[in-house]
Amino acid sequence: MQIIKYPEKETWKQLVSRPELDSGALMTTVSKIIADIKTDGDTALFEYINKFDGGLNGELRITNEEIRIGIGELSSELKKAIDLAFSNITRFHASQVDDVKKIETSPGVICWRQSIAIERVGLYIPGGTAPLFSTVLMLGIPAQLAGCKEVVLCTPANKNGQVNPAILYAAQKTGISEIYKVGGAQAIAAMGVGTESIPKVDKIFGPGNQYVTAAKQLIQLNGVAIDMPAGPSEVCILADSSANPTFIAADLLSQAEHGIDSQVFLVSDSEFVLSETLRELRIQLERLERKKLAASALENSKAILVHNLDEGMELVNAYAAEHLIIASDKASYFVSKVTHAGSVFLGNYTPESAGDYASGTNHTLPTNGYARAYSGVSLDSFIRKVTFQQITADGIKHLGQTIITMAEAEGLDAHAEAVRIRIKSLKDV
Amino acid sequence: MQIIKYPEKETWKQLVSRPELDSGALMTTVSKIIADIKTDGDTALFEYINKFDGGLNGELRITNEEIRIGIGELSSELKKAIDLAFSNITRFHASQVDDVKKIETSPGVICWRQSIAIERVGLYIPGGTAPLFSTVLMLGIPAQLAGCKEVVLCTPANKNGQVNPAILYAAQKTGISEIYKVGGAQAIAAMGVGTESIPKVDKIFGPGNQYVTAAKQLIQLNGVAIDMPAGPSEVCILADSSANPTFIAADLLSQAEHGIDSQVFLVSDSEFVLSETLRELRIQLERLERKKLAASALENSKAILVHNLDEGMELVNAYAAEHLIIASDKASYFVSKVTHAGSVFLGNYTPESAGDYASGTNHTLPTNGYARAYSGVSLDSFIRKVTFQQITADGIKHLGQTIITMAEAEGLDAHAEAVRIRIKSLKDV
Repeated sequence: MQIIKYPEKETWKQLVSRPELDSGALMTTVSKIIADIKTDGDTALFEYINKFDGGLNGELRITNEEIRIGIGELSSELKKAIDLAFSNITRFHASQVDDVKKIETSPGVICWRQSIAIERVGLYIPGGTAPLFSTVLMLGIPAQLAGCKEVVLCTPANKNGQVNPAILYAAQKTGISEIYKVGGAQAIAAMGVGTESIPKVDKIFGPGNQYVTAAKQLIQLNGVAIDMPAGPSEVCILADSSANPTFIAADLLSQAEHGIDSQVFLVSDSEFVLSETLRELRIQLERLERKKLAASALENSKAILVHNLDEGMELVNAYAAEHLIIASDKASYFVSKVTHAGSVFLGNYTPESAGDYASGTNHTLPTNGYARAYSGVSLDSFIRKVTFQQITADGIKHLGQTIITMAEAEGLDAHAEAVRIRIKSLKDV
Repeated sequence: MQIIKYPEKETWKQLVSRPELDSGALMTTVSKIIADIKTDGDTALFEYINKFDGGLNGELRITNEEIRIGIGELSSELKKAIDLAFSNITRFHASQVDDVKKIETSPGVICWRQSIAIERVGLYIPGGTAPLFSTVLMLGIPAQLAGCKEVVLCTPANKNGQVNPAILYAAQKTGISEIYKVGGAQAIAAMGVGTESIPKVDKIFGPGNQYVTAAKQLIQLNGVAIDMPAGPSEVCILADSSANPTFIAADLLSQAEHGIDSQVFLVSDSEFVLSETLRELRIQLERLERKKLAASALENSKAILVHNLDEGMELVNAYAAEHLIIASDKASYFVSKVTHAGSVFLGNYTPESAGDYASGTNHTLPTNGYARAYSGVSLDSFIRKVTFQQITADGIKHLGQTIITMAEAEGLDAHAEAVRIRIKSLKDV
């Protein structure tokens, strides 16, 4: 970890910048995958499964029998853990349901918004080095609460054609039974344009490697929505002298173990906390199974000494982290000062991994500075808020002249006429 | 208008499909504009202003003096109309403020969401055939209510270097003073990447022609968010025998006058209403200033006879209209049956133009079938909902084992360790 002491403000922009990836070649490859699957459907899809997923062992869609057998293999301890996480995540996301508020904006003019589930959604769960069954909960629970009619899940199977049993259990918990064994850009393309086997969806969710990310960006040009753009995972910790360097080191490592492109950022006004954390990092790193990954990620990471926590807060806001831990026993003081972050972890007993799994908040969050403009996934991500308005005859008489004046000033005569014709009809009565 | 009687369900998909535009060449042109402005800043920006906006008469940024003089020219009638619209739109959007709900998901684990304004937003207001000051209200009001710190507005000036006074007045009402005289893709590019003159923003809003639309789609690849993808404006009317053909015709024309690519879609179970509406269309069309535009738009439009209103509702949901008018004195009955629409207008005295200007709902809405996955603009579009969690020492003791079990099952050892190390420290005490 690189230590930077009291950086000048002019250097901050550079300090908080993420590495820019050149995705040109990637985009060309992925565009072709989408175009091919759009034109040739399953034929192209299976070609790509052979090419990139290493072929398909068994059927594309997982059978009920496979789900039953898979879940049977799961330990009751893991089931119990998933059950508790399910319950917490459900409780928090259920609190996001909005009541309908009917507002009389002017006499006889009633407006309101109604939350309506997106009908067809597609969830992508990567295979790779970790079987992310927790992400099934994070996407499946709000989809279920929203009432999405069709929830499709794509995830690559292993060489034996099997999907991790915990993924199957989490899917079952969230009412998902339509699971396809396909990964990568071809999975996103199939859900985005639809094939004979895999239905087209309206919105696609979920993490993935750079091919998946590119496919999600490009599928938007086909009119399909996505949860948010993605980038490497990251954590930022703001620590004062009340923070525990042992805990901070553990939190930094829990981010660093995700992969060599993980971003780790530590800001403190205490030189002692910084140096102790670095010492702890070296000790704890030795104990890790994913030691190599974590060590590489740490090489690109920064520990920054600032004059005081207010300056520190300003710097972490400039960074706009996916995960922001405020490691201080005065964490509550900083709540109102957060302007840019995906999810915030307050105090010394709130590790990021709590939010990753079981506190109840969603772990699908904006990385790469996208927290400046995007929220993480929530119930909102699975609904649309449709506006309704109902105007009475008296209401249009009252509001009519305003509309007519504005429409005429915009040169939209027929807009004015649609009101005039109604007002005239009321006078004729 | 093309009349289609009792179409078979197999033909619906074709019936509701919008013309697909080939945007390949456009994308190349616009990509270059963005790349040039990213590399050369103002130099490239001014070249494009000369090339596409016909040069710049005066300064790029409008002065306070220009604003004062412009507003002075505005009629008090129009000011009054804008004031009333401002008041209604503000009232409705203010009702969208969410209270913070702190949820104890399990003992000692508190989670909540906090709405935080997007710091820097850019609004685009097209010039062209209509000066859309109403759109300034629709974007400026929620930006103001959200508390966005920097609101930048770009709009092309006329040949004399002037911006329409009503645009200036609406901007002033919504607290916007940073207005740049630039239009088209170059305006989007400048706000997306930032130049010496125009600041970079986090999210870009607003309608525009196909160049603007392409620029908004492409600017996302630079990490800038946009309100939603855009397409030609459209209205769909579901009418039963209680509907007034004179009103329906006026509403169809108020959509058709937007431009030759406007989409107009009428569905009814009453053959009399359809034929009367078509007769009325011919009469009212003659009276319109924008007659030619409207007539062209109507050529591509469809009037569809269905067996009953339930079937009609299913068809209009399949269409997923930007604006859906339910022209029936039983409109309320259909509220719960709407699954896909941008904004819904209920009953015979609720013309679309009411929502366009002054009912209070937002008129920036998903077109082109995007209503399947997107909401219209609202206060939500200008904020992020950041999640917070705070766990007590007892809370992590209670929840800890769940997190450890799940992290281990995902092979993320350091995630488990961040919890173990905290629990251990509590036992040591």
